[in-house]
Amino acid sequence: MNQLRRRALAYACSRRRKFLSELKEFLRFPSVSSQSAHAGDLRRCAGWIARHLQNIGMRTVRIFPTPGSPIVYASWLGARDKPTLLIYGHYDVLPGEPLREWETPPFTPTVRGLDLYGRGTDDDKSQLFCHVKALESYLRGANSLPLNIKCIFEGEEEIGSTHLLPFIAKNKDALRADAALVSDTKMIGPGKPAISYAQRGGLRAEIQVHGPGQDLHAGTFGGAVLNPIQALCEIIAALHDGSGRVAIPGFYDEVRNWSEKERAYMARVGPSDEKILANAGVSRGWGEPGYTLYERTTTRPAVVLNGIVGGHYGPGVKGVIPTGAMAKLSFRLVPDQNPLHIDKLFRAHIARISPKPVHVAVHTTAPIQPAFIDRNHPAVLTAFHAYKKGFGAYPVFLRSGGSIPVVTTFQEHLGIPTVLMGFGLPDDRNHAPNEKFHIPNFYRGIDTSIWYMAAAARTLRSLNVGKRSLELQAEWAG
Amino acid sequence: MNQLRRRALAYACSRRRKFLSELKEFLRFPSVSSQSAHAGDLRRCAGWIARHLQNIGMRTVRIFPTPGSPIVYASWLGARDKPTLLIYGHYDVLPGEPLREWETPPFTPTVRGLDLYGRGTDDDKSQLFCHVKALESYLRGANSLPLNIKCIFEGEEEIGSTHLLPFIAKNKDALRADAALVSDTKMIGPGKPAISYAQRGGLRAEIQVHGPGQDLHAGTFGGAVLNPIQALCEIIAALHDGSGRVAIPGFYDEVRNWSEKERAYMARVGPSDEKILANAGVSRGWGEPGYTLYERTTTRPAVVLNGIVGGHYGPGVKGVIPTGAMAKLSFRLVPDQNPLHIDKLFRAHIARISPKPVHVAVHTTAPIQPAFIDRNHPAVLTAFHAYKKGFGAYPVFLRSGGSIPVVTTFQEHLGIPTVLMGFGLPDDRNHAPNEKFHIPNFYRGIDTSIWYMAAAARTLRSLNVGKRSLELQAEWAG
Repeated sequence: MNQLRRRALAYACSRRRKFLSELKEFLRFPSVSSQSAHAGDLRRCAGWIARHLQNIGMRTVRIFPTPGSPIVYASWLGARDKPTLLIYGHYDVLPGEPLREWETPPFTPTVRGLDLYGRGTDDDKSQLFCHVKALESYLRGANSLPLNIKCIFEGEEEIGSTHLLPFIAKNKDALRADAALVSDTKMIGPGKPAISYAQRGGLRAEIQVHGPGQDLHAGTFGGAVLNPIQALCEIIAALHDGSGRVAIPGFYDEVRNWSEKERAYMARVGPSDEKILANAGVSRGWGEPGYTLYERTTTRPAVVLNGIVGGHYGPGVKGVIPTGAMAKLSFRLVPDQNPLHIDKLFRAHIARISPKPVHVAVHTTAPIQPAFIDRNHPAVLTAFHAYKKGFGAYPVFLRSGGSIPVVTTFQEHLGIPTVLMGFGLPDDRNHAPNEKFHIPNFYRGIDTSIWYMAAAARTLRSLNVGKRSLELQAEWAG
Repeated sequence: MNQLRRRALAYACSRRRKFLSELKEFLRFPSVSSQSAHAGDLRRCAGWIARHLQNIGMRTVRIFPTPGSPIVYASWLGARDKPTLLIYGHYDVLPGEPLREWETPPFTPTVRGLDLYGRGTDDDKSQLFCHVKALESYLRGANSLPLNIKCIFEGEEEIGSTHLLPFIAKNKDALRADAALVSDTKMIGPGKPAISYAQRGGLRAEIQVHGPGQDLHAGTFGGAVLNPIQALCEIIAALHDGSGRVAIPGFYDEVRNWSEKERAYMARVGPSDEKILANAGVSRGWGEPGYTLYERTTTRPAVVLNGIVGGHYGPGVKGVIPTGAMAKLSFRLVPDQNPLHIDKLFRAHIARISPKPVHVAVHTTAPIQPAFIDRNHPAVLTAFHAYKKGFGAYPVFLRSGGSIPVVTTFQEHLGIPTVLMGFGLPDDRNHAPNEKFHIPNFYRGIDTSIWYMAAAARTLRSLNVGKRSLELQAEWAG
């Protein structure tokens, strides 16, 4: 076993230049899942990664079309009586807009200093690719893997994993594994790894306010007709009270209160308020009183406005009362909030506060359960030690404010824990212009993945599920 | 004098088809003053109307360039010892957007039934053109005018008459006249003319909220960083109280209280709440308690949101806390509010309510004084009788909710009243898609203008200013 690992590490060490150039190829696809114009790019990107998995020696590679982006599956199940690890990642990315704010174009990956710039460099292509290159290092450097591997790479993570979640539920047996490994989170800083053991859940919402059937002259009608922009702003203002708490009745009822011990642990290992403000690039914090900023972004829920539009906002003036206005927002939810229940509370609140002269419509999508992972599970402890080998330091255990929808699904449908082994840095600007990834973390991530697979072959309790899933794959063809 | 008028009316009657076709030519220019891309179209439109004025027989025609759109001036000052009438109109229009909501393109004037559709048909090209065709009817049909005429047509009315107002102040002597005539307002309905004797003033404002220096991941930072959209919405919500009154302290302090007699007159001749709601196409009114909708849009001031934008509002989801958000709004002011004082009160209110974690900037432009015109001035009474000749009915006296900046300027700098003789209809949809003008009103408007000029030659007290202004025109050349 050590022999395999040594060969894999030596292979990885000697192929760094090649690995980086392949990563750039992967990053060049504008695989933007939230814009339908990019459907073709998503398909091409899925095809590219599938061919790549085949070329590095994965035995079974399949592309499953969905009504949205395709799901890419690959497996190598040749390690008899060894455990099976399910590796998840996503090849879709957020839009590059606003383009003028990028120093180099989002889909032209560019190295500056020790960083690789481009959309998807942190979230999630480079992190996904660490594991692909670890697999290649074993399969091409040592002709074998120390354990069985199933990879599942989706193209809809940024829009709520709409088609992956039912796909997993439907193919439970075929996807069965002993643990899942996901790299789509952040470390604390360079050389300071972190394992995420909690993720906030979520719910997306859109509020549409419809007013007059046509734009009205603001002079002729101003003062006599309720303005949809004003109505929308008043509704949004009523989502929070003056202190920074969410004002939707019942919103906090199911929020779990953590023990003083847990809060003390979080205060000790988590980022300080100053650190979070520095990462955000703002000078003042804000939010629910009585909690640190780390708590406000992890153990406490939030309502976040993502966008708003209405009337004439371009250059020049246009004196109108517009026909309507619209806002997009997202809920960030925590244990034990249920997104479907929050949906109901939200709609009831909006119905209560909506002024009568306008028509208000609410649309919600992408409910995601909050996730919480046992820090003492062998799959997690194995990651703890693998990080020490790859990054020279033990990780701390952190909570994340974001959501990875698949984590809850793996727990619920496959009954396995997910190890959230992040390689990103806090200032990587994912979801913003000039997203980047620290190139040393790419190489250390590959090494960490190689160490993880070798150790997991021993530490994970094998359910010997590899053979079974291979047999069941025929089902998918239909 | 009657001879002149008869010939002019006969000329107008026989040229209706030609007049309509020339109006369509005028309407084809996309002379959109609020979009700098149309600067060339504004210049071409100004050139077209100047050539047209020359062709119909105006003796002096000049185009005055400004840093914005050109000002077109034309005069005929051959009526010795007769009064001088100053005719004002604007050849600029609002943008055609949203284009997909037009049944026929905004700059392809199209007749459907008795209406002519296109941007600028009501506001203000057709109304301006009524007077141009009345002038032609005298000059070509009778070789003379019954009184002296000065025309001033600007291309920036929709953006606050930025360059016309100082131009008038600078050329007071050259523009001197005995009364001003403006057609840029509405009648009550077909066959029911109206003279506007009050216009609301105005002030344009933009509120910009600046938050984080870059878009932030909504999961990672949601709950710890104040969202600029939320901050903007809370600021906008604080512009009104729950009842519909403007909540800016001191906002109503200078608002004039009208006598019960005046309110009774307004209630008798003005549109009912039902009529105003029907014109707006909405089912419920809104606004300051204790006043009719007619009062709320004329004798009471208002704050009207015109547009808002921030973050990601396009298709799909993008989980960000955006860097900023912006709203555009306009104040509609009444006697005796002063736009510059309201500006101060507004800024003080915004400064007081702006949350600290964001930076809020306020920009204001285009202050316009409210205007009020004596209903008993001979120039106004002459219009009262001219309408009866042109439309077969005496007009009522109405207040307007909109603003025509030049009215106050004529009063202040030239010391003359402005007759607001509107030919538009309440459902003409100016400032909205599918703007139209009722074609019979075009012909009746021409006749009314012909009758007005003939009568004004007798009723206006001549200050014999015609000759003087002709001499002073040399000044402008410099």
